[in-house]
Amino acid sequence: MTLRLDYGNMLAPRLGGRGIEPRRLQRFAAEFRRAYDEVGERRARGEMGFFDLPHARETVSEIRRFADGLGQAFENVVVLGIGGSALGTGALSQALLGAHWNELSDERRDYYPRLYVLENIDPTSIGPFLDRIDLGRTLFNVVSKSGTTAETMAQYLIVAERVRRELGLEAGPRHFLFTTDPESGALRQLANEEGIPTLSVPPNVGGRFSVLSPVGLLPAALAGIDIEAVLAGAAGLADRCVTPELLENPAGLTASLLYLAEREHRANINVFMPYSDRLRALAAWYCQLWAESLGKRLDASGQEVHVGPTPVAAVGATDQHSQFQLYMEGPFDKVVTLLAVRDPGCDVEIPPLYEGIPALAYLGGHSLGELLSAERRATAEALRREGRFNMTIEIAGHTPHALGELIMFYQIATVYAGALYHVDPLDQPGVELGKRLTYGLLGRQGYEAPEIADGDPRWIV
Amino acid sequence: MTLRLDYGNMLAPRLGGRGIEPRRLQRFAAEFRRAYDEVGERRARGEMGFFDLPHARETVSEIRRFADGLGQAFENVVVLGIGGSALGTGALSQALLGAHWNELSDERRDYYPRLYVLENIDPTSIGPFLDRIDLGRTLFNVVSKSGTTAETMAQYLIVAERVRRELGLEAGPRHFLFTTDPESGALRQLANEEGIPTLSVPPNVGGRFSVLSPVGLLPAALAGIDIEAVLAGAAGLADRCVTPELLENPAGLTASLLYLAEREHRANINVFMPYSDRLRALAAWYCQLWAESLGKRLDASGQEVHVGPTPVAAVGATDQHSQFQLYMEGPFDKVVTLLAVRDPGCDVEIPPLYEGIPALAYLGGHSLGELLSAERRATAEALRREGRFNMTIEIAGHTPHALGELIMFYQIATVYAGALYHVDPLDQPGVELGKRLTYGLLGRQGYEAPEIADGDPRWIV
Repeated sequence: MTLRLDYGNMLAPRLGGRGIEPRRLQRFAAEFRRAYDEVGERRARGEMGFFDLPHARETVSEIRRFADGLGQAFENVVVLGIGGSALGTGALSQALLGAHWNELSDERRDYYPRLYVLENIDPTSIGPFLDRIDLGRTLFNVVSKSGTTAETMAQYLIVAERVRRELGLEAGPRHFLFTTDPESGALRQLANEEGIPTLSVPPNVGGRFSVLSPVGLLPAALAGIDIEAVLAGAAGLADRCVTPELLENPAGLTASLLYLAEREHRANINVFMPYSDRLRALAAWYCQLWAESLGKRLDASGQEVHVGPTPVAAVGATDQHSQFQLYMEGPFDKVVTLLAVRDPGCDVEIPPLYEGIPALAYLGGHSLGELLSAERRATAEALRREGRFNMTIEIAGHTPHALGELIMFYQIATVYAGALYHVDPLDQPGVELGKRLTYGLLGRQGYEAPEIADGDPRWIV
Repeated sequence: MTLRLDYGNMLAPRLGGRGIEPRRLQRFAAEFRRAYDEVGERRARGEMGFFDLPHARETVSEIRRFADGLGQAFENVVVLGIGGSALGTGALSQALLGAHWNELSDERRDYYPRLYVLENIDPTSIGPFLDRIDLGRTLFNVVSKSGTTAETMAQYLIVAERVRRELGLEAGPRHFLFTTDPESGALRQLANEEGIPTLSVPPNVGGRFSVLSPVGLLPAALAGIDIEAVLAGAAGLADRCVTPELLENPAGLTASLLYLAEREHRANINVFMPYSDRLRALAAWYCQLWAESLGKRLDASGQEVHVGPTPVAAVGATDQHSQFQLYMEGPFDKVVTLLAVRDPGCDVEIPPLYEGIPALAYLGGHSLGELLSAERRATAEALRREGRFNMTIEIAGHTPHALGELIMFYQIATVYAGALYHVDPLDQPGVELGKRLTYGLLGRQGYEAPEIADGDPRWIV
């Protein structure tokens, strides 16, 4: 079974007057074809490298050589990275290793290393973490495409100094592995000078589209994940989603339905709600992909448009008890995408105790998997009955193949959506100002100390 | 130092034409006074019990007796709960114990127990977790105000059967502790029949306002958190925020500014972005509080209004590399509340290595705390320069007192916002339909199997 999209609850016949008319969707097929062509042209110009990652056999062999040579020699693999250099690794590892991997014994991990992603610069996380781990048994994978990311460079400086101090000046090449641009940036320069092994991020693959490059695949392989199966899933899904026929293209349909819901029905919030604890991190990965790719000031012709739906991550069933009241009764400003895992891989029976107590009796004899699935179907139906847009994506399981599919699915949907919004889904010009101001505040050469408007006592309480 | 709100970047003089006019805010003081009075009246009628929790001395003594008697006898405390029965406990424990508490050695935890919150029914989490822990050294705190929550009851049945099987029929009263309604519900009935120790949730305290009741305080106390300091912080903040003078009332200002931004400037998304890994779970707690309290179909007069801003959790600096492109360039539909921790409690120096490489040199000599703080200030300023609503809340530290303040701050802001929107912030009628449909799907007596509109092959791809 492959990824499956049920979009009936986006359509007017199901939503009692609200919703997208099926004939509107049919008419939209022409618009989608234009978006499809645009993506095809950019791909042909070599601008969308993520499409080709599943077929990069040499890269996979290189990753395998590293992983097989290094993997079980270390107790800990620590990724230093942020944003696109961290989120994909978190998504893959949580989905395929489980949320508690690092708490398992060596035996239960099959002697694969623990895997940590340090994706922030909070001293209260990083200080105690570095104090706690055994540096001598740790490999640090420093991931920054540009090789200049402030947060990652700061982490690297701290770790490099500790490794030198505790393990000696010569330890670097054994305890570091860089993933960065093939030519430029500080990490590439350091790697060349110090002989640190390095993998390359293809220049035509941006951070948020890089999980299927060495950025995400190296840590996954080190932790024992079958990266070939991830890539096979991604390749198969790409084949399905590279067709101009809207109604046969699940990624195209997702992009088109979310676009129509936002443009024509004011649903500016896209909730992604997997019914799986293991897909929490994947939801965070999706939020970056969707937000950073579509949230743009300028359209392709340079006009100010200020577009972009806002992605929101939720987890079922948990967030039924947190966000659902708003989703059911609040403004009609959302599309909720529920994600079902057909075979979660294990189940737990609910025993029939206390048959005389009605609030407990009906649960006995079912399983947690059944309860979770019933709640998901009930949630979709409840949303539908209230006229609320929703869709359901089903994947086969928490398997490498299914994760590869899901990742490629959203990457392709994102570039189609970019073409529909007439924006460039591959750039992120809006983050530069904040970086420049930070450099100024820290006194970086060439950057002026900025004037910052804050601290006015009239407006402080 | 106490909680501090800097709201200058919500105002027109700062936002270059966009933003709320200061005189509009001044005029709004009268409207706020009406909201203030309404909250005061409901409080006087005994409907808003959360205000009084910081002064419930008897409850605190009772919690202390339990905690001192039980705490260090157990290696694990496992909370079975969902939504309001889980989020506050997660918020307090992550903020005050750190995210990696459960990975620390007994010594580093001062022999306080590990603390787990099972807030979902995903079999792939719960099965392996229960297989892994030592039931004989585990206390299960079952938390459900109604004593009927399906997810929590299912968890309880599974655990109760395992405890009976592995530890014997009589083990229940030693390994369970219920937190529930003082009179009604299945948990109360079971507690009476089986002699299971039980703490009460006051009837006038709803789930999402219950973190300062035994719901949140018992697990906190068991893990060694100074709950008296949490309550002292909450009490002090409540004193500051119970004043009808809008411009002197930080909770009133937060509610009013977010209300005005949404009603008069179409900012329907409220981002809460602590610059602290330890406040991730607090952000999730806030999201429930804000969404479930304000997302309503009907106003107080019974009119259909379908209101409610959508809360979004983010974490700085991490999400600058994920959501920030959208926040800076996308639609003007957001207010970002940044949260600063004045003294995070520890810091890490960034050593001055590689002074010849510009991308690294400027970082040396600063600390991670300085970098984090510079990024936060730069982010606020960058948002401001782009005309984007933002505010900054500063708390003193990751201390029990500061957390108590912050929790009470948002609880009070929430009921003021409810009064401004003319909705009841204390109910959640929208979650009932989903529950009924779930009961029907599971064959609960008295509930019909529902017809569910899904699976139409025309709309599946």
